[in-house]
Amino acid sequence: RSQRGMAALETITGGGTGKLVDSLKDLAPELGDWIIDFAYGDVVARPQLPLQTRELVTVGALTALGNAQPQLKAHIRGALNAGCTPREVLEVIMQMAVYAGFPAALNGLTAAREVFAERQIVVPH
Amino acid sequence: RSQRGMAALETITGGGTGKLVDSLKDLAPELGDWIIDFAYGDVVARPQLPLQTRELVTVGALTALGNAQPQLKAHIRGALNAGCTPREVLEVIMQMAVYAGFPAALNGLTAAREVFAERQIVVPH
Amino acid sequence: RSQRGMAALETITGGGTGKLVDSLKDLAPELGDWIIDFAYGDVVARPQLPLQTRELVTVGALTALGNAQPQLKAHIRGALNAGCTPREVLEVIMQMAVYAGFPAALNGLTAAREVFAERQIVVPH
Amino acid sequence: RSQRGMAALETITGGGTGKLVDSLKDLAPELGDWIIDFAYGDVVARPQLPLQTRELVTVGALTALGNAQPQLKAHIRGALNAGCTPREVLEVIMQMAVYAGFPAALNGLTAAREVFAERQIVVPH
Amino acid sequence: RSQRGMAALETITGGGTGKLVDSLKDLAPELGDWIIDFAYGDVVARPQLPLQTRELVTVGALTALGNAQPQLKAHIRGALNAGCTPREVLEVIMQMAVYAGFPAALNGLTAAREVFAERQIVVPH
Amino acid sequence: RSQRGMAALETITGGGTGKLVDSLKDLAPELGDWIIDFAYGDVVARPQLPLQTRELVTVGALTALGNAQPQLKAHIRGALNAGCTPREVLEVIMQMAVYAGFPAALNGLTAAREVFAERQIVVPH
Repeated sequence: RSQRGMAALETITGGGTGKLVDSLKDLAPELGDWIIDFAYGDVVARPQLPLQTRELVTVGALTALGNAQPQLKAHIRGALNAGCTPREVLEVIMQMAVYAGFPAALNGLTAAREVFAERQIVVPH
Repeated sequence: RSQRGMAALETITGGGTGKLVDSLKDLAPELGDWIIDFAYGDVVARPQLPLQTRELVTVGALTALGNAQPQLKAHIRGALNAGCTPREVLEVIMQMAVYAGFPAALNGLTAAREVFAERQIVVPH
Repeated sequence: RSQRGMAALETITGGGTGKLVDSLKDLAPELGDWIIDFAYGDVVARPQLPLQTRELVTVGALTALGNAQPQLKAHIRGALNAGCTPREVLEVIMQMAVYAGFPAALNGLTAAREVFAERQIVVPH
Repeated sequence: RSQRGMAALETITGGGTGKLVDSLKDLAPELGDWIIDFAYGDVVARPQLPLQTRELVTVGALTALGNAQPQLKAHIRGALNAGCTPREVLEVIMQMAVYAGFPAALNGLTAAREVFAERQIVVPH
Repeated sequence: RSQRGMAALETITGGGTGKLVDSLKDLAPELGDWIIDFAYGDVVARPQLPLQTRELVTVGALTALGNAQPQLKAHIRGALNAGCTPREVLEVIMQMAVYAGFPAALNGLTAAREVFAERQIVVPH
Repeated sequence: RSQRGMAALETITGGGTGKLVDSLKDLAPELGDWIIDFAYGDVVARPQLPLQTRELVTVGALTALGNAQPQLKAHIRGALNAGCTPREVLEVIMQMAVYAGFPAALNGLTAAREVFAERQIVVPH
């Protein structure tokens, strides 16, 4: 469970699990354990749905909620790390205009723009 | 655009577009047009992402928002009509426990239970 | 302040303040006082914005939030009682499709349909 | 961990863990495990905060979110089962008028009214 | 439809449509089209409600949602550009304390303060 | 009522009521009055629940809502000023992972980290 979670998290974070866990050590190291063991080990690593699909769903949900920009950026990176294309990420964000309104989609786009800039991703029209 | 939207909506609703459009005729027939032309024609029918993936993303987003139970049920039906398996729908809903909390996932599960009961779907463990 | 609030609330509820206050007597009579004195007396009754505009804004906000259906219905009634037309109420609800997504607008429409049915309001296209 | 979670959950549900777990068996038995092991075992049962305080916080959060009425009712019951007084539950719900608005507080009050009626609780003013 | 949308958007943005459209060209030019054609052309430009009222409703809804600060600022500017007074904008934001809580109103006020500062607007008490 | 509110607010803000009231003078001095008289005088200062519990509930609710980071930080300070321990504040924030998802808890933790850094609070594991 812990191992399965760690493996999934390493894929999503592109090898950045250590950094994530360290960032929680000062105040809530348990949260790091819960993320690895429960969030990734129990849930996200389940083989019944491919990791790419899971990450697109998470990008969509966080875009719709609109109140967790740092995590949205982390999961846009996670979707790319899991093998989703920038095009797929954009499609999910744009789709949220229908289900959560244009402001949510526009702020999702801002998050994608920041992540794509980090990686020098240019999206052909 | 209108035709493309209609085709996508027919798939999602399992041939129920007419019923949806009729249900809006009394108060807001324009909303029916916008759903066909914009929501489906412009957005959901875009070929850059398969309809199955789009529906799973919508199920995830509506489960996370937790404030649109009738539309969540409609899109659980839509996901199944588009060819998603009940298992995939459940995985998305369960995943939302991580990103939007257990109450959101539990209410998503209630929506799935109602839709699965309509269709006499039994999910093997 | 209390008097000003009562007057505004009587307009919004169409003379139903007593019923509202009574409904809170069992568990939280203070909430009734706060609604009259603060919510209506201090805020809603302020003359710097007409009551009609205030009610349309409230209908829009509650449609967008999507998590307070009973209050949305109360304020659709309130908008009508304050002198807004059914058409204006519908326009506000439909507009929320842009800012909060189609599910929010559709559930707002359901609320309007129930209120309009109570009052046998038919809206000409 | 599982045992600690079960004990906390038994307190919150007033001995109804079996019923909760059974209700998830058809579609998502894993969710039952996660609730016992993670939600209660890892988090809610932590001794650093009394269960009563935890339940009041949960009642406040679910009242504020306003999109999980069944779980709000479950945690109003849970707060009472953990030893909170009806008065404390009401205070938390009323307080949410300040932080999440009157509609949220009013719908929280409706949930409390339903739970108090089940238990024939009368709250003296 | 496109022309009607463009005209409404030019009013709201104070002639800044080109800049808005350009800002979306890199990643989602379609979103620019949808904003002009659907959001403004189909919905916001409808003559059944004055643009001023529509903008006040949007300011109220985005203040209540509290998760779209950049768009809230854009629509505070939009309300002023459409002819609303700073007083009207403030009244709507203050009113949200009742329907969405004080934090939402306070953050709406921060958005207004930033926009008013850009325009050197001083609001007399 | 005004005096009772002022006293509670002085405790929560650690003597910063004047600064809060001043910050609202330019645009919405009434909001300052409402906060003192209604939010604190009528609601938060009620003796039926200790101020510490009230602040923990508010920290939990604002963490769960996730759309009012400045107010969350103010109430983390408020909880500490009212006599809550840093440990209690962290427990409430961590608990929100269960009820509102990990992104909400992580952003709550960020708010706590910033407040704890201001006060040079180190939390022993």
